[in-house]
Amino acid sequence: MATNTVSQVAPSPAEDAAALLKAFQGWGTDEQAVIAILARRDVTQRKQITLTYEQMYNESLLQRLQSELSGDFERAMCHWILDPDERQAVMANAAMKCIQEEYPVIIEIAGTNSPAELIAVKKAYHVLYKCSLEEDVAACTTGNLRSLLLALVSTYRYDGNDVNMGLAKSEAKIVHEAVRNGTIDHEELIRIVGTRSKAQLKATFSCFKDEHSSSITKVLRNATREAGTDEDTLTRVVVMHAEKDMKGITGAFQKRSSVTLEQVIAKETSGDYRSFLTALLGS
Amino acid sequence: MATNTVSQVAPSPAEDAAALLKAFQGWGTDEQAVIAILARRDVTQRKQITLTYEQMYNESLLQRLQSELSGDFERAMCHWILDPDERQAVMANAAMKCIQEEYPVIIEIAGTNSPAELIAVKKAYHVLYKCSLEEDVAACTTGNLRSLLLALVSTYRYDGNDVNMGLAKSEAKIVHEAVRNGTIDHEELIRIVGTRSKAQLKATFSCFKDEHSSSITKVLRNATREAGTDEDTLTRVVVMHAEKDMKGITGAFQKRSSVTLEQVIAKETSGDYRSFLTALLGS
Repeated sequence: MATNTVSQVAPSPAEDAAALLKAFQGWGTDEQAVIAILARRDVTQRKQITLTYEQMYNESLLQRLQSELSGDFERAMCHWILDPDERQAVMANAAMKCIQEEYPVIIEIAGTNSPAELIAVKKAYHVLYKCSLEEDVAACTTGNLRSLLLALVSTYRYDGNDVNMGLAKSEAKIVHEAVRNGTIDHEELIRIVGTRSKAQLKATFSCFKDEHSSSITKVLRNATREAGTDEDTLTRVVVMHAEKDMKGITGAFQKRSSVTLEQVIAKETSGDYRSFLTALLGS
Repeated sequence: MATNTVSQVAPSPAEDAAALLKAFQGWGTDEQAVIAILARRDVTQRKQITLTYEQMYNESLLQRLQSELSGDFERAMCHWILDPDERQAVMANAAMKCIQEEYPVIIEIAGTNSPAELIAVKKAYHVLYKCSLEEDVAACTTGNLRSLLLALVSTYRYDGNDVNMGLAKSEAKIVHEAVRNGTIDHEELIRIVGTRSKAQLKATFSCFKDEHSSSITKVLRNATREAGTDEDTLTRVVVMHAEKDMKGITGAFQKRSSVTLEQVIAKETSGDYRSFLTALLGS
């Protein structure tokens, strides 16, 4: 479920475009006006405002926002006005500029989209960059990181619920063999994680737990790096999920952390950036 | 362009289904009647006949054909009545039973479909086998063959005409480095061939030829195995391309071989199998 509140009776795209221009003009930008407008429009409305703004004022709204705003607030707002497919294509492309640090962004995009949604992101990538997500991922990586990321972004996974239990058992064994003695056979692990359906992986990991009384994530934890909880990650999670399933994320967050995500954001962020994120969280 | 001739005024699917049942009944099957009907129906008509036959006689047309016909003719006809996406999914799945011999089938399917067509084949694969093409390819291969085939079937390639000439030059150099001294750096070769767009690869190979006065296919020829010209390959090419671009293939064949494909088929095949292939070639 979404967390952001969309205005029930929104002004026309032309009125919103005019209000945005007014917020940009004069001494300093009226950031609160920008938030009040854009945080309360849905994806279709934001698209129309972007198009209308460009037609009316002969300049790109994205570029104007980039020049008017700054820092984390600018990045959050610029991601927000894109449609979800373009946004994720832009995020993936940006992550590849610094792939050793930012590869969790690629994993997140590959992992949180359905197979059909991932194809839509890849189509947007073609349009924006005149090349494929796959070739850029492959070109900026080597070795096991290449194999893993490439499998994750490339595979058009089966997304039905059918599960092969025999296979789950045999691959739980392969996973066990692959990680025992502290040396990891990356090739087989990557094959399984990179190509099997989510339902099948769930069954495999469940077999692993039954057999070895320990979850695979626990076994693998030392071998992987946790994604940082920096501002870019926070922006990405809130902007990507606000309109989709953020309610579930804030609920899960509260269960694990005993504080609400809103409380953490109020403590860890400030200014317009904080106003914008809390608006997207529906506070 | 297609080579097979579709009847201008075709009987209804129910009439065709009844005529097929008649051809199956009695002493021996009337193969010529089966060919006369099915070779002259387009893909939509064949689909309707299959559905109607099943409704009318409560049996699968595909299974009846499998029990009535035999050998190469049976395999060709059973492929022909499937729609192109299902047919290629079935062919890919069959190839994986004997992947060391049959991997050229996978390469052919990955190489002759547009990115959107390949997704349609992969969707058909999900429906038929309740798993993904990628996971089956990955599970039945290892090492370089796995990396190559998996890249070919997985990548959602960019299919625009935009080409990066600087990249073409630098990757022509990487390809040269990768194949010199007779030792091949498979990882970089597979990355380039497996992920770049067709237009980009064309530019890269053209740069390679300009720099080294020899085409990359000539350099690589000894490193790869040519697909056999056995009946299965012949069936696959004719059945897959008859309704699509077979005219171009027969033209190219004649240029290279100084005989027509029809002449070779007449010489190398016989019986109902020959009748069927020549019908699909429009003779």
